[in-house]
Amino acid sequence: MAGNTFGRVFAVTSFGESHGPAIGCVVDGCPPGLALSIEDIQKDLDRRKPGTSRHVTQRQESDTVEILSGVFEGKTTGTPIGLLIWNEDARSRDYGNLIDTFRPGHADYTYWQKYGIRDHRGGGRASARETAVRVAAGAIARKWLREKHGVVIHGYLSQLGSHELPFRDWESVGQNQFFSADPDVVPKLELFMDELRKAGDSVGARITTVAEQVPVGWGTPVYAKLDSDLAAAMMSINAVKAVEIGSGFASVVQRGSQHGDELTPEGFMTNHAGGILGGISTGQDVVVTIGIKPTSSIRIPRRSIDKQGKPVMVETNGRHDPCVGIRATPIAEAMMALVLMDHALLHRAQNADVMTNTPKIAGSVKRSSD
Amino acid sequence: MAGNTFGRVFAVTSFGESHGPAIGCVVDGCPPGLALSIEDIQKDLDRRKPGTSRHVTQRQESDTVEILSGVFEGKTTGTPIGLLIWNEDARSRDYGNLIDTFRPGHADYTYWQKYGIRDHRGGGRASARETAVRVAAGAIARKWLREKHGVVIHGYLSQLGSHELPFRDWESVGQNQFFSADPDVVPKLELFMDELRKAGDSVGARITTVAEQVPVGWGTPVYAKLDSDLAAAMMSINAVKAVEIGSGFASVVQRGSQHGDELTPEGFMTNHAGGILGGISTGQDVVVTIGIKPTSSIRIPRRSIDKQGKPVMVETNGRHDPCVGIRATPIAEAMMALVLMDHALLHRAQNADVMTNTPKIAGSVKRSSD
Amino acid sequence: MAGNTFGRVFAVTSFGESHGPAIGCVVDGCPPGLALSIEDIQKDLDRRKPGTSRHVTQRQESDTVEILSGVFEGKTTGTPIGLLIWNEDARSRDYGNLIDTFRPGHADYTYWQKYGIRDHRGGGRASARETAVRVAAGAIARKWLREKHGVVIHGYLSQLGSHELPFRDWESVGQNQFFSADPDVVPKLELFMDELRKAGDSVGARITTVAEQVPVGWGTPVYAKLDSDLAAAMMSINAVKAVEIGSGFASVVQRGSQHGDELTPEGFMTNHAGGILGGISTGQDVVVTIGIKPTSSIRIPRRSIDKQGKPVMVETNGRHDPCVGIRATPIAEAMMALVLMDHALLHRAQNADVMTNTPKIAGSVKRSSD
Amino acid sequence: MAGNTFGRVFAVTSFGESHGPAIGCVVDGCPPGLALSIEDIQKDLDRRKPGTSRHVTQRQESDTVEILSGVFEGKTTGTPIGLLIWNEDARSRDYGNLIDTFRPGHADYTYWQKYGIRDHRGGGRASARETAVRVAAGAIARKWLREKHGVVIHGYLSQLGSHELPFRDWESVGQNQFFSADPDVVPKLELFMDELRKAGDSVGARITTVAEQVPVGWGTPVYAKLDSDLAAAMMSINAVKAVEIGSGFASVVQRGSQHGDELTPEGFMTNHAGGILGGISTGQDVVVTIGIKPTSSIRIPRRSIDKQGKPVMVETNGRHDPCVGIRATPIAEAMMALVLMDHALLHRAQNADVMTNTPKIAGSVKRSSD
Repeated sequence: MAGNTFGRVFAVTSFGESHGPAIGCVVDGCPPGLALSIEDIQKDLDRRKPGTSRHVTQRQESDTVEILSGVFEGKTTGTPIGLLIWNEDARSRDYGNLIDTFRPGHADYTYWQKYGIRDHRGGGRASARETAVRVAAGAIARKWLREKHGVVIHGYLSQLGSHELPFRDWESVGQNQFFSADPDVVPKLELFMDELRKAGDSVGARITTVAEQVPVGWGTPVYAKLDSDLAAAMMSINAVKAVEIGSGFASVVQRGSQHGDELTPEGFMTNHAGGILGGISTGQDVVVTIGIKPTSSIRIPRRSIDKQGKPVMVETNGRHDPCVGIRATPIAEAMMALVLMDHALLHRAQNADVMTNTPKIAGSVKRSSD
Repeated sequence: MAGNTFGRVFAVTSFGESHGPAIGCVVDGCPPGLALSIEDIQKDLDRRKPGTSRHVTQRQESDTVEILSGVFEGKTTGTPIGLLIWNEDARSRDYGNLIDTFRPGHADYTYWQKYGIRDHRGGGRASARETAVRVAAGAIARKWLREKHGVVIHGYLSQLGSHELPFRDWESVGQNQFFSADPDVVPKLELFMDELRKAGDSVGARITTVAEQVPVGWGTPVYAKLDSDLAAAMMSINAVKAVEIGSGFASVVQRGSQHGDELTPEGFMTNHAGGILGGISTGQDVVVTIGIKPTSSIRIPRRSIDKQGKPVMVETNGRHDPCVGIRATPIAEAMMALVLMDHALLHRAQNADVMTNTPKIAGSVKRSSD
Repeated sequence: MAGNTFGRVFAVTSFGESHGPAIGCVVDGCPPGLALSIEDIQKDLDRRKPGTSRHVTQRQESDTVEILSGVFEGKTTGTPIGLLIWNEDARSRDYGNLIDTFRPGHADYTYWQKYGIRDHRGGGRASARETAVRVAAGAIARKWLREKHGVVIHGYLSQLGSHELPFRDWESVGQNQFFSADPDVVPKLELFMDELRKAGDSVGARITTVAEQVPVGWGTPVYAKLDSDLAAAMMSINAVKAVEIGSGFASVVQRGSQHGDELTPEGFMTNHAGGILGGISTGQDVVVTIGIKPTSSIRIPRRSIDKQGKPVMVETNGRHDPCVGIRATPIAEAMMALVLMDHALLHRAQNADVMTNTPKIAGSVKRSSD
Repeated sequence: MAGNTFGRVFAVTSFGESHGPAIGCVVDGCPPGLALSIEDIQKDLDRRKPGTSRHVTQRQESDTVEILSGVFEGKTTGTPIGLLIWNEDARSRDYGNLIDTFRPGHADYTYWQKYGIRDHRGGGRASARETAVRVAAGAIARKWLREKHGVVIHGYLSQLGSHELPFRDWESVGQNQFFSADPDVVPKLELFMDELRKAGDSVGARITTVAEQVPVGWGTPVYAKLDSDLAAAMMSINAVKAVEIGSGFASVVQRGSQHGDELTPEGFMTNHAGGILGGISTGQDVVVTIGIKPTSSIRIPRRSIDKQGKPVMVETNGRHDPCVGIRATPIAEAMMALVLMDHALLHRAQNADVMTNTPKIAGSVKRSSD
């Protein structure tokens, strides 16, 4: 399968560079009859949009999405949904000095060596701008998941640099620019970011994403594990360097007698598994955490080479997020939605006739106690 | 794509349960003309084999592989390579008590709810036994990678429970039962495992896998990123709960001025990226670390439910690894080989004609300094 | 997707050469809970088996299939079904003279130029022997289709050389060696084949395959059309050079007022469409006809070249079918079953929730009047 | 794989309905460095465009294509190429009477039963309008094939209704509205079509497509046969009911001694194989013929049912091609280009290192003598 399509039966194919005329995608395999409006998609796009605070890139993009196909009289028809977002604020002049050099930590060098040609303006296809179409496609998936199965997907910023940000409640997340689940830490984060921006540097982040009400049984046992597809989905987001399911790396120091989530008629007693066992959802919350590296485009001068292999110093003065993680929550949610939707459809393809008399238990644990 | 095939153009399709007659796989897309003998595959299988020390499962399996097709007069022909391993020591009686109950932390419950039928003997398809075919298929990939591109893939146990195990040298790895890169820690690990076994409990582990001499340019920018496919590959291994590329979660607290690997004519100065930028290999070592949960099959009694949803206590007395991580190193190496091989072929499919005058730099850093 | 896997969610991956140790396949995506025995598969294999009359190859193969996985206590488990058939009568000596030459009309030359290595014995992977695994896999699909949806798949020999063989009834097909739907023509065919064999020549054939009771709605509108997948399936059978759906090439001379099947409350009035409109099944019989070329391995000497490009004369004295079409009916039926099953699952993946109040009409036409 | 993507490594994903705002596609996997302008694509689109003569639909569409991504400074970058064509002349009023009824021979009924929702205007996704994006994508493939391998792809109308149209020369094809390879038959065809249009009826056609200079070795032996993929490609075109490779159905009555193309140092002596043996290109012309049914939208009243299953009479007064085959030649050429390109890339993925000393022979036969 070619590299710009994601998903097996619910598949998203994306295109577009940050400084070309437009970005967009084709969402294939959506069930017919889903009520879908521009607004359903736009509201998620607006959560990811640049330029909404001083802590993110100042590029001005309305990120207005157009639905080109697949929806008729307000409902999906089952045919592919074409989505389009025009690029509005693509100031190529910011990148003139990058034609012949490679930014450390960026894809410049690898692109150039792979393709021998490179749209140097804003990273081309490597730009985080591509993630807008993931959010748009994900909005369709999460709407179907919610309406059909009651699945609700949330995410929040669980760490910013060395600041660990504990979960308090989901309501807070939408009420601050950091996607923090605790409003009280926001002033501290603002101060931290202001200093970082002043220093011309950047920092990493951690995002936790949770899907509630996922039914037991989604996923398959070996290569198309639900967690395997989630790991691929998350690692495909720009700047992500690590993925955990449930307890993740903390499992390494746990004993089996501690890690294995006990089952009771009232539900699972813990959720170290992160809602997935043997590649298949358990009925508990699906919990995925990602680690995001610091933005590579920074103002501090760094050593690099040019196209001739000669040493140069590089500093990047374009409009960049000092922490790409801040805007990454809606993207991680969207990728989770795409994976869950694909597996919801795959599950019923093979197993629509399965019934057991065993009660379906869910989690008895609440988010805060994970 | 169906769930038991891994890879895009170099594809492995596996079958087999731990307690059925056999396991095996079909390796499709292998270039013709590769010298390939049983021995090339068997030596990797022997590294993963159960029963080789008291610290792993006592199940006795010779894991003797047969090549059923795709090789003629000692060379691959380009047609699919059928590999078969008969199961020899499948003592189903060990599992009689699991017919109606679900082991905590195991796939029993999710399988049952998904499929409504379950081969309860030894976990069926969820058994780590399936990973033998990955090792067999991976052996073919790593032979081609080494002969064609000089790529060498190593792995080692970098943590066992709370014991962090620093890297010393690759030679040591093959000389102890723990895949430890430091022989001096082995006595300590043996003592630890003996106590754990006595307690009837299990523990997690961390494995680090490194591919050296990977050329710059493998991988693609968006969904088929090299790191995305590696994350899927690793997370598809039984019991893996976390995957990191390069600095992984440590990137979260790094500054951009620290994380972004500087380029010089002599090579990259650091390798926080783990050999991948923008989804494409840089020419440095590709470094992947995984976190493995403690085995769920333990002797300590735990709460669960039966098929009627009634509460029961479960203890597992079969022959299990107290730490599945100990035998996981060859599996992680194999999965890395499969991903790299697939991308090697995909790269030349699209980009065989690309040439640049820019020198290809590699890493100047050595493993120990990561 | 690699080239030895067929299907999207119900996928068959095959391996094996005609003169290697074994052939086999992995059937992935089968719904769990289907009762499946060796006998269910063997009876279809026996219909394709060589050596059953003097009109087909005299190679003696029992084609005994083994189920290696995916079935537990007589039922499919939803995990991949491994199928294995050992080769028994592989007389390589018949092929010694073909090491360095290429048979006209055969894949010898193209294989050699593509792969640079070739198992010259019996055509290797190009042998019709590979089709045994299609029949085995197809047997699983048709059992599920019949039990779940009442779909019945039949085929018959509709032309042998210049002998057009009209349809009389399905019962006759199983009662003669030619898969003729008219028992009265059999003596004529036997005489024809005896003369052909004496002349050391071969001839082509036409097979018609019909699936009854296919529900309306299987298939998709654009690239994954039901007829598109059927065409691929049929053309992938050895020696097939042509595929028609419904009226096929006869449509070329029809008027729209004649071709377009009228709908009435009692059903469609004709079935020129062959049961498919816009890539989607109509509820009428799905009718596919294939044209098979004459076997290329004949005793009559023909011009060719050797590996050095020098002219040579080639005659083939191995044990070959003088008309591969005679044994092709079960293969065409199997491929039809695989496509229908895949689309049955794909359909419910996307459209399980669709309901209309429009009555589902079927065909009012009987086979004989097509 | 979802149903609106075509191809394995060179993949086209299409979207759009005939009466929505736009149609378009994403072309993924194109090698970088190919010079590509709007004009390269537009000239093929113009050959397919409606409204160019009185013998085709009078819908007025300029079919102006926009390149949204994947091209930088006139060259492909290796990233996905987004193509967009706005719909201009979508007169929905023509279709008001079709909201509740199903046209015989059309996809109306199957769509409705499959999806439960239907964009009744102009056939929605079933419209031949979708083929414009195939032509656009195919233009990229044929440019690369020609520049990299010298492959030239031609097609012509080889039959219109009962008029068989023999091949004379390729130059004529571009000089008449019928894609006839013989200019002398054009007056006869015009007369025929005028009468047909007057009668409000439609007719079928046959198109022959030829790819010259295809190297030996493209394709694979079993399921991903070159001819299998070509059959799928051609059958996926609207209204196609039959596909032949080389001699096709004529092979049925041939003897092996006649059909099997002899090899000589000067080349193959005949081309009954149509340039493909064992699923792999031979180096001769690849020849594919398709049969196209008569347009289902005709003015002559016909019996049908409405959504309640009640009998109705239907006549279609929109702007339709009385023979869709007339504009189908560029579409068939495009689909052939897509398949060949995909296989060119797949071939070098697996077999880039293969070399033989055997001379590569080509065809000694000319088109006219097939």
